[in-house]
Amino acid sequence: MSDYDKLTAHYQTINRFAHAQSMLGWDAAANMPSGGNDARGDAMAELSVHIHRLSTQPQLADWFSGVEQAALTTEQKASLREMKRSWQHATLVPEDLVQAQSVAGSKCEHAWRTQRQENDWVGFEKNWKEVVTLSREEAKIRSEALGLTPYDAMLDKFEPGTSSESLNTLFSDVKTWLPELIEKALDKQKSSNIIMPSGTYPAETQKALGLEVMKLLKFDFDHGRLDQSVHPFCGGVPTDVRITTRYDEQDFVQALMGIVHETGHARYEQGLPKAYAGLPVGEARSMGIHESQSLFFEMQVGRSKPFVSHLSRLSKDAFNAHQDPVFAEENLSQLYTRVEKGFIRVDADELTYPAHVILRYEIERDLINGVIEHTDVPELWDEKMKAALGISTKGNYKNGCMQDIHWTDGAFGYFPSYTLGAMYAAQYKAKMTQTVDIDAAIQSGDLSPIFQWLSDNIWSQASLHTTDELVTRATGEVLNAAHFRKHLEQRYL
Amino acid sequence: MSDYDKLTAHYQTINRFAHAQSMLGWDAAANMPSGGNDARGDAMAELSVHIHRLSTQPQLADWFSGVEQAALTTEQKASLREMKRSWQHATLVPEDLVQAQSVAGSKCEHAWRTQRQENDWVGFEKNWKEVVTLSREEAKIRSEALGLTPYDAMLDKFEPGTSSESLNTLFSDVKTWLPELIEKALDKQKSSNIIMPSGTYPAETQKALGLEVMKLLKFDFDHGRLDQSVHPFCGGVPTDVRITTRYDEQDFVQALMGIVHETGHARYEQGLPKAYAGLPVGEARSMGIHESQSLFFEMQVGRSKPFVSHLSRLSKDAFNAHQDPVFAEENLSQLYTRVEKGFIRVDADELTYPAHVILRYEIERDLINGVIEHTDVPELWDEKMKAALGISTKGNYKNGCMQDIHWTDGAFGYFPSYTLGAMYAAQYKAKMTQTVDIDAAIQSGDLSPIFQWLSDNIWSQASLHTTDELVTRATGEVLNAAHFRKHLEQRYL
Repeated sequence: MSDYDKLTAHYQTINRFAHAQSMLGWDAAANMPSGGNDARGDAMAELSVHIHRLSTQPQLADWFSGVEQAALTTEQKASLREMKRSWQHATLVPEDLVQAQSVAGSKCEHAWRTQRQENDWVGFEKNWKEVVTLSREEAKIRSEALGLTPYDAMLDKFEPGTSSESLNTLFSDVKTWLPELIEKALDKQKSSNIIMPSGTYPAETQKALGLEVMKLLKFDFDHGRLDQSVHPFCGGVPTDVRITTRYDEQDFVQALMGIVHETGHARYEQGLPKAYAGLPVGEARSMGIHESQSLFFEMQVGRSKPFVSHLSRLSKDAFNAHQDPVFAEENLSQLYTRVEKGFIRVDADELTYPAHVILRYEIERDLINGVIEHTDVPELWDEKMKAALGISTKGNYKNGCMQDIHWTDGAFGYFPSYTLGAMYAAQYKAKMTQTVDIDAAIQSGDLSPIFQWLSDNIWSQASLHTTDELVTRATGEVLNAAHFRKHLEQRYL
Repeated sequence: MSDYDKLTAHYQTINRFAHAQSMLGWDAAANMPSGGNDARGDAMAELSVHIHRLSTQPQLADWFSGVEQAALTTEQKASLREMKRSWQHATLVPEDLVQAQSVAGSKCEHAWRTQRQENDWVGFEKNWKEVVTLSREEAKIRSEALGLTPYDAMLDKFEPGTSSESLNTLFSDVKTWLPELIEKALDKQKSSNIIMPSGTYPAETQKALGLEVMKLLKFDFDHGRLDQSVHPFCGGVPTDVRITTRYDEQDFVQALMGIVHETGHARYEQGLPKAYAGLPVGEARSMGIHESQSLFFEMQVGRSKPFVSHLSRLSKDAFNAHQDPVFAEENLSQLYTRVEKGFIRVDADELTYPAHVILRYEIERDLINGVIEHTDVPELWDEKMKAALGISTKGNYKNGCMQDIHWTDGAFGYFPSYTLGAMYAAQYKAKMTQTVDIDAAIQSGDLSPIFQWLSDNIWSQASLHTTDELVTRATGEVLNAAHFRKHLEQRYL
């Protein structure tokens, strides 16, 4: 067996344990009763340790150095590159640091759940200090090994190939036009008459409606299912994708669009190439590209007028409420494009969302690079929120810098993915329009031409190319915020 | 760390992988869409290989021989005994034989699914021959290592400590009185007027009813749940027990009692001692003892008149059918104690069930011991069915010797567990009656005194004692078929 084949077999083995881990994680969120938690935690930790052990096995170094590059096809070279990337990420950080981070992160996150509710910055800061210190250590180690700035080395975990240089350019651009666009959209919205949902919408009916919408989006039910969990997510494995949502019986709006969003993630997973199943090269390219699929489904398709027309028809049928003005096309469309300045990122609309992300990006970048200290964060947050959305979070930590889970356990470098995804999605749309009549496809109820484009250009390409290559092959250029601006202007002006 | 502590840590590690395997198995039966099957199969096979590797790791031999027995408490000695038993079972059979059995068993079982429907004994016999040959090889190896007859060595996998000598005695006794008892019960039944279910019983309502019955049986919903699968079973782990059932919307009778049965299995698992969680000594004693709990719940409690009175009340409420004579106490009681001679074991009632088991036991015992050949089975089956129940299976393989899945993949030695379980359950009841007013407890709706007895005597004892010790400590004697006979006579005469 060649060294390349040994590596391939080894990563497929790792993937089978990751399958178990993924399913146990989904089950813990969707099914598990509370009393199952401790034993499940132990089992999942054991799987993590085992996967880490396999991922850092000493023979890997020999196999990687033994591979004869010349004998490999282009695809095999890409596969090798991704296995190597995976190996480097697993081996870069010393185990005692990983362990210390895990302990500090769990402690901080656990306490945060109470501290946030109590607006207790002082208590939070004590735990968080350690998390930040350890993340900076991690960033330093990664930085030296990868020849990147500390923050860029953290970004690389989620968005390989993306740098703060390019993010600075993209986000500075957004900051020049976003505040004004938000004001104009709010102005325009003033004259609209919106009817809010006020009935009772049984979870069972919402689920049935969600399943209908998933059919319209050609979710493959032979390879996945829809369930419920407190925090909606897309989990499972490509051959069996598990998406979840949460139903509010007083309001169907969010759960329904949440299903559209998760279906975007799911179709990417379901559409990954079978030929590379179980290998790093067969996985989604990055968090930003993953988000580009969920946001293409949600923002480019889901909230478009022709799709809202389907939602109107299907929800009238589901709730047997053909005369209810809430479900009228125009009203649903307004509900799904409503703009509001708010404190909370996860509740934010499409237009204000980038402001929340850019603020976090600027703070975490400077924090990890040592330009600011963790105690500077509340004040910076307040300043930046005032600048971006005109609202102050002074003394309001719970709705300010303590609102997200990400930083509590050291996931620095993740936030940009959300807005990168939204930008990629707008760029695909602009390119797709050249060959596909998108609105007509949506209107017809057969969205296949749209999905075919995504499959050809994104899903089937998995991690065969770098992100920049992938996007350039798909759209003819690297990421360009102009498409995002144009999309938002068209929708909100 | 002492060798004993090393062993303990090692078996706890194995158990965490077994947790993953058990949950993936449950999920495959209860949730997984068909397209997920291949990748799931690979993941589960990888876990099996890994568990096998851990179970046969060379250091184990050193650790076992290094343990200083004198330093151990009684409980630790029991724990050591059970770890050793687990190790011996894993190491006894050479890997190439295990592999050959797995291949032959899968092939035979897979083809059997079609062959059974087509009554194709000739086709089945060709595959089954190999399964029998390999099982005999396995039995020979186990026999030599354990100093038991070949069949007893196979029995030992499911019922440690049970021998065909004792089974011969128990079952010969049953054969002296069972046929006459069946005839008398059938005679008595002739005069009864039974009303069969004829309505539509929605699955959702049946599930709600099932959950009510589980509450009555004090199933711990913090540590388990109820779902659906094609073949009902009890899976999961002790801290998170997953029971399943299947609903027939034309008939609620079987699903409802199936839930009672699986709840018995579940409460045993939920009641295993926390102090030995994750260790072989903390697991259920044997298949027969497991079945004794499900059958105690089903036969001793579930089909008793005071419990059927609860079922009557709860099902009238659930189906909103207070006037429907099907749900009347007396009618439900007749439905749940109806006797019928039939071909199929899984459809058999309490009274004829032992006849099905004893016939299988006699055939598999002689087959594994080399007294008969696999080609003799159809004729023997016909003879024994005529003797036991007066019905012939000549030429009727599908409802004769080809009806069960067990033998298709070599699970020889399992069948006796079913009737051993029924006998143990009757013996517990006889003993329990001396200190607990069982009928009064059931009538009151608070069955705690019954469960306390089972917890004290069975659940909390896990595998701390051998089966004979366990039963003697609980009831003052080893297994005695007289209690089973008395129970059946009281119910059916």
